[in-house]
Formats: sequence, structure tokens, C-alpha cells
Amino acid sequence: MAPWGKRLAGVRGVLLDISGVLYDSGAGGGTAIAGSVEAVARLKRSRLKVRFCTNESQKSRAELVGQLRRLGFDISEGEVTAPAPAACQILKERGLRPYLLIHDGVRSEFDQIDTSNPNCVVIADAGESFSYQNMNNAFQVLMELENPVLISLGKGRYYKETSGLMLDVGPYMKALEYACGIKAEVVGKPSPEFFKSALQAIGVEAHQAQ
Amino acid sequence: MAPWGKRLAGVRGVLLDISGVLYDSGAGGGTAIAGSVEAVARLKRSRLKVRFCTNESQKSRAELVGQLRRLGFDISEGEVTAPAPAACQILKERGLRPYLLIHDGVRSEFDQIDTSNPNCVVIADAGESFSYQNMNNAFQVLMELENPVLISLGKGRYYKETSGLMLDVGPYMKALEYACGIKAEVVGKPSPEFFKSALQAIGVEAHQAQ
Repeated sequence: MAPWGKRLAGVRGVLLDISGVLYDSGAGGGTAIAGSVEAVARLKRSRLKVRFCTNESQKSRAELVGQLRRLGFDISEGEVTAPAPAACQILKERGLRPYLLIHDGVRSEFDQIDTSNPNCVVIADAGESFSYQNMNNAFQVLMELENPVLISLGKGRYYKETSGLMLDVGPYMKALEYACGIKAEVVGKPSPEFFKSALQAIGVEAHQAQ
Repeated sequence: MAPWGKRLAGVRGVLLDISGVLYDSGAGGGTAIAGSVEAVARLKRSRLKVRFCTNESQKSRAELVGQLRRLGFDISEGEVTAPAPAACQILKERGLRPYLLIHDGVRSEFDQIDTSNPNCVVIADAGESFSYQNMNNAFQVLMELENPVLISLGKGRYYKETSGLMLDVGPYMKALEYACGIKAEVVGKPSPEFFKSALQAIGVEAHQAQ
């Protein structure tokens, strides 16, 4: 592998993941991954632009940032690109009223969204809220629509908590896709639009980013 | 369409589905579909062999047959081919000890099966038992195996209850397939082996069946 100096030639900005990179989530707020607090601090002292780009969708950005700050990270809400605000923009642009199959922790991000008489489903990493009843509600909403729209915040298979591996949103997105014979629209990584919006926020082109 | 006499030339046996064909399941035991009680009675009075071939996996055969008899059907347990007994045979043959992600109603079919220290997962139409916790348990069992084996009792997308459409086992099978990067083995319809075993039970060849 090339030395760091060479690899960073032409690089102006860095996108950092959060869960599993800066910290492992879990009971009591999770734990910082060794060296990551200092690594973020060094990046911020450097000439590089830094943005945090996460698929975290169990928590609002406010809650996530609060948790990371308590673990010692220098991070603010305005530095975070996350799927829920990106989804809200899409919902508003297209006049969509979602049935929200999401974790209660992220519900506040959708405060300004009309959820009456749903004409789409938004699915996120809902954890314990992935009950049969809630999945069936989402399924029934989709089956009653002429053109079913399913928006998924990420499509991760699983993630690691301090207590072990946990199912992420992806498997449940696949379940609804199969049940209804449809294809979800993924908001968040690995969608190119999502990465682009994160880079735009720091004024960096794709070829200048690491 | 050819008249019935012509269509039935050479036919010696009939396989009948149960849910959605003979009755719609639901609260209070469900309801018989109009004409189906009499149709079964007529088939049984005819020269044709009859076998019931179902993917029902929320109930034991005993419970299912009891329910159908109360609705007026002439049916006995020995006339039913169902996925749970077929799965038990596979488990025994291959020395598999399942984690059972199933409805409590069908658990008695697995009474003779060793479920200690699981080395596979059996998934069926579990209804309310498709909790996040139970799905995650099944996922964790599979992820700890060198060669993960997932056996699915059917792969239906959904079924109709008197109260509306309900998610079947298929979507949850797809969820675990995606989470673990594996392919399930389906026991039940539409697997050819399953139909063959139903035909064997009445001594009829595939080309003689309707």
C-alpha cells in the first residue's frame, strides 16, 4: 500500500462513517473505538475538510451527536449527513405522506411531515419496533396503493452492538420488497446521491475525497 | 376450456389446497368458502383419489383437521400432506437440531426433535412470533454456523385472513437470506418433492393428477 503522504495527494476532504468506525453502539451509549477520538481531533486540526456520513437511523442527529460528544468526540449536528433529513426532503418534494416504520428515537426528525392517510412507507432500522403487527401495517399500506413507494433509510444487513450482531433495516426492506413485488428506493449509503450531498456540504468534489 | 369429462380423462387423483381454497382462516376458526364442503364430499364419492396438500404451518395437522371438520369437511389427519412433518423427516435424516422460528400452534409437530445447541434454523409462518427478538435469535444462530442451513416451510408472500392480508413466511425467509447471504431450502409447495410425496401417499403418478 502506498505511503499516506502519496495516498493523500490531491485529497481535500474526508467522509467519516460513525457506527462501527468511531464507536460501537450499545447499552449505556456504546463505546468509542480505540484511537478514534484522537483521529477525529487530528483530522480537524489538519488542512482537510471533515464530514460525518452515517446511515444511523435509530436516533435523531441531536441524540447521536450528544452521545458522541459524551464519548469525547469533537462533533456538531451541522457536520452530520444522515438519511432521515434526506428522506424528509424527498417526501416534501414529491408530496408523499409516509407510514413510518421507524425507531421512536428518530421520530422527531419527521415532526414536520404529514403522516395522515399514507401514500408511501418509510422504513428504517426500527429495532424492537419491527414487530409483526408493524410490518403487517406497512405491508397493508403498500398493497392498497396503485403505485407502491417504499423508501428505505440504508439497506445494511446487520450491525454490531456491544451485545452482539443485530439485524439492520436491509433484511426488513427485502421482506417488504418480496411481499409486495416491488423495489425500494434507498436513501443513505451506498446511494451516490447521498455521498454527493455530504461532499457538497463541505464543498469538495468526489475525486478530492477520501 | 375443454369440458370437464375431457379434461379429467386419464386423471386418477386430485390434490386439494386448503387455505384460500377450502376455507379462509381467521378469528373463530375461519369460514368455509362457498361450495367447498360439498365439492370435497363429491370428490370423495367419485372414483378419484383425494389428498389435501397444504403449506399451513401455523397449526398442527390435528388442529387444522379439527377446525375443518367443525366447518363440515370430511377430512382426516392421515389425508393431509403438510410441511412440518416433511421437515421433521429431513431434520432426522441429516442430524439437524433446529432453532424453531415457528408459531406455537405447530410446535407439537416437532415434539420428537432435538432442539438443543442448534445447528440450523427452521422458519415457518410464525405470525406474531416474528418479533425482532426472535428474528435476531435465528439470525445469530445462522451467523455462528460454518455452513448455515435455513429450512423454510413454504415461501408464500402473504395470505388472506377474514381480517385482511397477512404477511406469510416468505418475506421473513428473504430477510434472513439477505442478512446472512444464504439461500433457504424450501419444504412445502412449490417444491416438486413435496407434491411427489403427496401423490405417493395416494399411489398416483404426476401425469394422472389434477
